Amino acid sequence: MKKIINKPENFVDETIEGILYAYGDKVKILNGDNRILLNNQPVADGKVGIVTGGGSGHLPVFLGYVGDGMLDGCAIGNVFASPSANKMTDMIKACNHGAGVLCLYGNYGGDNMNFDMACENADFEDIKTATVRVKDDIASNDDPEKRRGVAGMVYAFKIAGAAAKKMMSLEEVVRVTEKALANIRTMGVALSPCILPEVGNPTFFINDDEMEIGMGIHGEPGIDVKKMMSADEIAELIFKKFETELSFNKGDEVSVMVNGLGATPMEEQLIVYRKLHLLLQERGVTSFMPHIGEFATSMEMAGLSITVFKLDEELKELLRYPAMTPFYTNHNK
Amino acid sequence: MKKIINKPENFVDETIEGILYAYGDKVKILNGDNRILLNNQPVADGKVGIVTGGGSGHLPVFLGYVGDGMLDGCAIGNVFASPSANKMTDMIKACNHGAGVLCLYGNYGGDNMNFDMACENADFEDIKTATVRVKDDIASNDDPEKRRGVAGMVYAFKIAGAAAKKMMSLEEVVRVTEKALANIRTMGVALSPCILPEVGNPTFFINDDEMEIGMGIHGEPGIDVKKMMSADEIAELIFKKFETELSFNKGDEVSVMVNGLGATPMEEQLIVYRKLHLLLQERGVTSFMPHIGEFATSMEMAGLSITVFKLDEELKELLRYPAMTPFYTNHNK
Repeated sequence: MKKIINKPENFVDETIEGILYAYGDKVKILNGDNRILLNNQPVADGKVGIVTGGGSGHLPVFLGYVGDGMLDGCAIGNVFASPSANKMTDMIKACNHGAGVLCLYGNYGGDNMNFDMACENADFEDIKTATVRVKDDIASNDDPEKRRGVAGMVYAFKIAGAAAKKMMSLEEVVRVTEKALANIRTMGVALSPCILPEVGNPTFFINDDEMEIGMGIHGEPGIDVKKMMSADEIAELIFKKFETELSFNKGDEVSVMVNGLGATPMEEQLIVYRKLHLLLQERGVTSFMPHIGEFATSMEMAGLSITVFKLDEELKELLRYPAMTPFYTNHNK
Repeated sequence: MKKIINKPENFVDETIEGILYAYGDKVKILNGDNRILLNNQPVADGKVGIVTGGGSGHLPVFLGYVGDGMLDGCAIGNVFASPSANKMTDMIKACNHGAGVLCLYGNYGGDNMNFDMACENADFEDIKTATVRVKDDIASNDDPEKRRGVAGMVYAFKIAGAAAKKMMSLEEVVRVTEKALANIRTMGVALSPCILPEVGNPTFFINDDEMEIGMGIHGEPGIDVKKMMSADEIAELIFKKFETELSFNKGDEVSVMVNGLGATPMEEQLIVYRKLHLLLQERGVTSFMPHIGEFATSMEMAGLSITVFKLDEELKELLRYPAMTPFYTNHNK
């Protein structure tokens, strides 16, 4: 296991300490509990709180998006493990500014169960909550309700965060976040596994000339194992899969995310973006605010995911709205 | 070779096409020549031009820093290969706004020779130029004049770019950039090699339990091969090496860059930053605007480099100054 770490059992705590040392002007922890990260910038009374949570090992997801204009709080578990319901409850309480709290997170069993319990706990204390689960990974299930949440959640954080910052009500924030997610789809390919620090073994095995199509960010099996394809072929395969669920017509505007899973160079991400841009162009579709880089990783996994986000005027305005977090800044207005 | 590319010989061109499609509002190419990238935002008459150049395969170095507040132009070669003197000449001419042009680049044989020729060519056309070579890699040679330029060049781009944007003269831009570089040192460790797209073989071999201390970003041999060390040990080893050349005293302010070489997760970069923060704290030194992420890579190489940049008031102001490029944005003012 070739990792630049100290004791594997300290991996998460030391990562969070690094974040606090580096970005203490933007984020803080709740009452000395370094598994609950909160926005450290001023928040208006009556702003809806936006919170998330999930396992570690996916930076910048989730911690990196806590900050002004995106998330108010994030509860984090061990690597690839859900945080507890109690931590989520504490976070929800800390992020309620009088207008309720939206729990916005990926559709995974542990997170679903714990967030549901946390929302019940919050209800006992008369804190209004709402839940939106991200299910953007089209390779994970044919049934849209059973899909996992992957990189598309970053767009959801951005939209919900901007809506809350603009002082929309909880109901309105839910409405616009659900509208965004109805227009978001993601699919990825994995070329090599990652290694959990406390386990020390690769999460899966793959041959030197093969790739996993549609693999999840925890190494969940994909829909197919194929011989390595070219960048253009990968872009086209995934885009055509999107077209079975979303229409892309002349005059449409779409934001595309090419997300490196950890070990894939920026050059390769840009080569894939190039093809997606051409595919959109062929259809008369405009690319708006592309996101190219590492947004949701699996530590040192090689591969990438592609997300499309079909926009309307309201969604465009929220996507453009300013945000300032340790790993995401946007100053268009 | 597991890369998400098309034909290896199109690697550089398609990367640049991706950049142009994604960031055409910020950057453009010169007269259809996609090996010369220029700032596409308005530039004041009389601003000193800041240009660089070098081989591909190091994104965001160099192309990613072309834009408002940093570089006016970048000439790019094939992977790990210098661009030609003619391209550099064309770029210098395009980036002269009447106040001369600073050529600011890493100290490598091919780049030195070609930029020297380009400056002579510019001189024939009465364009004033100056040259500052970045030599921040302390592991590359005991003689500071013979050292290579690595991630520290990003700080140099930032300082020179801000100085030019503030309408300093060419002489003043050179003075402040040289002052910055006298206070910048870098050293790295490599854990695994990268593969040149057109070659198809790893750049070097290393055992599964070993690391290269001080390896260059093109796979140049380092100063030692050692068994894998912990994050804290690596941070301490490198920081102590810096202390043989720079003093860190109570009240000093330092910007630290932890730069992932390509495949190293953000979590590991933060764990290394954590230790550096503690080492500075022990000495009463304040960490100012840390830079943690991928700033100068070698495609899919695993490992990281650490850069320290000792600041004074003038350098702090220039580091904080706004910049807006495809891969570097800063809005502190």
